Amino acid sequence: MAQPGPATLPYFNASPAEVRRLCRTGQVTDMTAGMAAGYIQANIVMLPAALADAFHEFCLKNPRPCPLVGMSRPGEYGIPALGADLDLRTDLPRYRIWRNGVLVVEASDLGDYWQDDLVTFALGCSFSFENALTACGIPMRHLQTGRGVSMYRTNIACTPVGPFSGPVVVSMRPFRSQDIIKAVEISSAIPLAHGSPVQIGFPAEIGIADIGTPDYGDATPVAEDELPVFWACGVTPQAVLAASMPEFAITHAPGAMLVTDMPIAHYQDLVERHRRGVI
Amino acid sequence: MAQPGPATLPYFNASPAEVRRLCRTGQVTDMTAGMAAGYIQANIVMLPAALADAFHEFCLKNPRPCPLVGMSRPGEYGIPALGADLDLRTDLPRYRIWRNGVLVVEASDLGDYWQDDLVTFALGCSFSFENALTACGIPMRHLQTGRGVSMYRTNIACTPVGPFSGPVVVSMRPFRSQDIIKAVEISSAIPLAHGSPVQIGFPAEIGIADIGTPDYGDATPVAEDELPVFWACGVTPQAVLAASMPEFAITHAPGAMLVTDMPIAHYQDLVERHRRGVI
Repeated sequence: MAQPGPATLPYFNASPAEVRRLCRTGQVTDMTAGMAAGYIQANIVMLPAALADAFHEFCLKNPRPCPLVGMSRPGEYGIPALGADLDLRTDLPRYRIWRNGVLVVEASDLGDYWQDDLVTFALGCSFSFENALTACGIPMRHLQTGRGVSMYRTNIACTPVGPFSGPVVVSMRPFRSQDIIKAVEISSAIPLAHGSPVQIGFPAEIGIADIGTPDYGDATPVAEDELPVFWACGVTPQAVLAASMPEFAITHAPGAMLVTDMPIAHYQDLVERHRRGVI
Repeated sequence: MAQPGPATLPYFNASPAEVRRLCRTGQVTDMTAGMAAGYIQANIVMLPAALADAFHEFCLKNPRPCPLVGMSRPGEYGIPALGADLDLRTDLPRYRIWRNGVLVVEASDLGDYWQDDLVTFALGCSFSFENALTACGIPMRHLQTGRGVSMYRTNIACTPVGPFSGPVVVSMRPFRSQDIIKAVEISSAIPLAHGSPVQIGFPAEIGIADIGTPDYGDATPVAEDELPVFWACGVTPQAVLAASMPEFAITHAPGAMLVTDMPIAHYQDLVERHRRGVI
């Protein structure tokens, strides 16, 4: 199956505000992959203010899995730097409500769940660098086959802070040599979307015994002329929440991200360098 | 064996002018590897003016193996942009004199061989990015063992121009996963030193049947937890000269480079990013 590209993805070139409006009005209810290329998309974690300082420090100490792109003040449902019109209670397609580390329900808005002491953390997401790879013509098998990216818990521990600890979760994309080189160049230029890979080619070194059995997402076959490439993944904070069991938390649902107004630094430069054959 | 590093390489932090003076006065007569870190070192090709336009175009069309960093006017033995005091007849440790594509003699200066119609091309060299890797603490086995880097002719053809054609020659360095990622990040930031790799992990794809038998340099073992990483190599123009057989040409001797005053763009930034753990 051909990979959906800029020409076939209806919202690839949409503005972030337009995508947020589609989420708010219930026209986009699921994945935000392939939308608003060139802008940072974000994983969302909302926690009671009493836990905010510790989680803030946790993000700063674990920038690969948890690249902090924005943070609200307690009880505020906007983060002006990420979008003037942004309403964190409605502008994601889908949310997850957690109590004591257990997922209790999903919701399309937070009308019934908002609390006035919540602090929202926005953490960069691999959709941003996947959009950059797509713009540079680099195919990704999970997109070609319409499946979820393969994700694995690793033996790499997050730097713990207060109640927050857990393993780094990684996503895996198989590439041939040429595309490995390009993918490293492109992703290393986007630290707010997890930056460069954490592993190429040797999954056992990070504690992945069977690449065919991901812990999250779908299995992705790796061809003989390909190597698996692993990036730190925004699922890490959800695994950390499950392990740390805060009394109350809200996150996005997997794939249903906050689309922010923050441009990916150097995005046009990356696409232009690809066009000229430099990448 | 420990790899020579900034602390043990006597001229790692020397200025380019100081290294050129040592070459000129016969105190450095061989390799310029590990000298004047942070500055572009260059392969040298001198050709009669009648061939200069074609070779100039050849370099521009083959920027990975032949990254052009400077070019003299016919008969001039200076290139001011590469060093105010530069004398191309004396400032390399060793030269090779070629007639009809055959190496006829080596010389420590060009007193007996200089011609008034020569045009000099300075082409970036991997020593520059090796210095950057060394500064970032990334070991290279050929340096650790004091041997020459492994080099191979590939099935990748240079874009031919006029009489100049031939295969791209690549150098190979084996790395573990972590250092592959760093090496791609660092080398891709230095296009004047061949830029990012051309192959990772699958030598047969570029026509290398036996990695244990390099066409130039020494064999380098690749450990089980390593992958071979290949970069376009400045030996390419010497292979092209051998194939194109110009009546007269002068080059540097392998490893005996021109050390230029041209700083590696972003070099301090790379070292600083490494120091902060970002690379």
